[in-house]
Amino acid sequence: MADAPKELSHEIEVRPAFFDVDPMNVVWHGHYVKFFEVARSELMQKFNYDYMAMRESGFFWPIVDMRIKFVRPAALHQLLKVKATITEFESRLRVEYRITSGTETVTKGYTIQVAVDANTMEMQWVCPKILWERLGVSP
Amino acid sequence: MADAPKELSHEIEVRPAFFDVDPMNVVWHGHYVKFFEVARSELMQKFNYDYMAMRESGFFWPIVDMRIKFVRPAALHQLLKVKATITEFESRLRVEYRITSGTETVTKGYTIQVAVDANTMEMQWVCPKILWERLGVSP
Amino acid sequence: MADAPKELSHEIEVRPAFFDVDPMNVVWHGHYVKFFEVARSELMQKFNYDYMAMRESGFFWPIVDMRIKFVRPAALHQLLKVKATITEFESRLRVEYRITSGTETVTKGYTIQVAVDANTMEMQWVCPKILWERLGVSP
Amino acid sequence: MADAPKELSHEIEVRPAFFDVDPMNVVWHGHYVKFFEVARSELMQKFNYDYMAMRESGFFWPIVDMRIKFVRPAALHQLLKVKATITEFESRLRVEYRITSGTETVTKGYTIQVAVDANTMEMQWVCPKILWERLGVSP
Repeated sequence: MADAPKELSHEIEVRPAFFDVDPMNVVWHGHYVKFFEVARSELMQKFNYDYMAMRESGFFWPIVDMRIKFVRPAALHQLLKVKATITEFESRLRVEYRITSGTETVTKGYTIQVAVDANTMEMQWVCPKILWERLGVSP
Repeated sequence: MADAPKELSHEIEVRPAFFDVDPMNVVWHGHYVKFFEVARSELMQKFNYDYMAMRESGFFWPIVDMRIKFVRPAALHQLLKVKATITEFESRLRVEYRITSGTETVTKGYTIQVAVDANTMEMQWVCPKILWERLGVSP
Repeated sequence: MADAPKELSHEIEVRPAFFDVDPMNVVWHGHYVKFFEVARSELMQKFNYDYMAMRESGFFWPIVDMRIKFVRPAALHQLLKVKATITEFESRLRVEYRITSGTETVTKGYTIQVAVDANTMEMQWVCPKILWERLGVSP
Repeated sequence: MADAPKELSHEIEVRPAFFDVDPMNVVWHGHYVKFFEVARSELMQKFNYDYMAMRESGFFWPIVDMRIKFVRPAALHQLLKVKATITEFESRLRVEYRITSGTETVTKGYTIQVAVDANTMEMQWVCPKILWERLGVSP
């Protein structure tokens, strides 16, 4: 009997550093891409399928689409929670993000990744089986 | 009689640097936000309404929404053209981007900015008149 | 009777992220500046004299000199300890850094900051009293 | 008869972008590492011995030491000239940098690189012959 699947989400905490803040005294919008990536990377590590494991499995997983909505600005050292949740895994890997400060939403967005065979460099129209095995899900 | 309006687009060239390239030997997806920003900034300078002029006019113009589609990877030092075009200016400032290498599309996307009154910090539901004057357009 | 002075050093842990790693599969040398800054910032927070408090005290503290020796490369997600120690505070603020992985040194370096009066923009040849008070030291 | 050696220096122009500027309204000190790298990379391209050519020649050239002195702050879009000059090539590759704005020095510094054999990963105590050939110099 299989273990119950782990929850398909993970939350991290970040505090924007001085180098993340722009002349308007708020986090520069492009730096949220980093916060998303750290959360996604830790989420995938939970399933033993982060960047290194992806390569070993014979696939690259480039990001093909990304969207970010900036709801509220964030300040230097403000405590932010970044929650990443896998919401699609059939034909592509979609991760949704919500960054909050207390009860308020700061930023939300998503990334979409597709599998590319590392040998043939062909894009896969269905996610490879290894993803489902690692996530403990059935498509 | 007014001058004819300048074209609402601008193109720059960039060559990704070593620090833009990730372990997959392609430009890290988050760095395209910088390429977009450089193109948008030069575009707005053409109309004398870049960051400094925005502040002087009494408005901040934070980015509230951004989307990027990654069509093809780009390599170290690959010559990229980044074209930014204003496609909305009535209630918000929407800029569309297309990054190309030769005849191929590498990346495309958009950013949406809204005006915020620097004194009251209130978001403006219609773009302030100063934007239209600078762009030489009528809403 | 005054409290005993806190130790003039602080250690943080960092794990380099995917966006910190370059095509040679090691942390890009310029990113260590960020790791130094996060350690220095937390060190100064311990003494209630980080960036915001510096501004409120009427001084900027720009970095005027920085040196980094790269002893060993660091890899994606490798656990690094970054220790920052104040080693001078009389006429300038000197912070030394040592980044280690287990018992091995990865990087070492220093930064030097001088106080600039925020009103006159004049560089101070002696550190302002507020620094010594916050650090609990006598020059 | 050999061609006269090209001058061992190269100058580029950069204009700091919005994302290079920090809450003190000046270029964040860590971003100068990027400006140095772009100048060094173009300098080495002139001699057909930039990053890709280095790898093909069987050597990595990691930076082992870097120093930057920050003389004056630089502002958003300020025109900066970055001159990189090779000043040592016998046992290590030393490049010196001077960033100027008009007649004033903004930043100066150096980087030191050593050759590492890509097969054995052994550090070379003398620069490999290929460097001298490409530079058109004799040690």
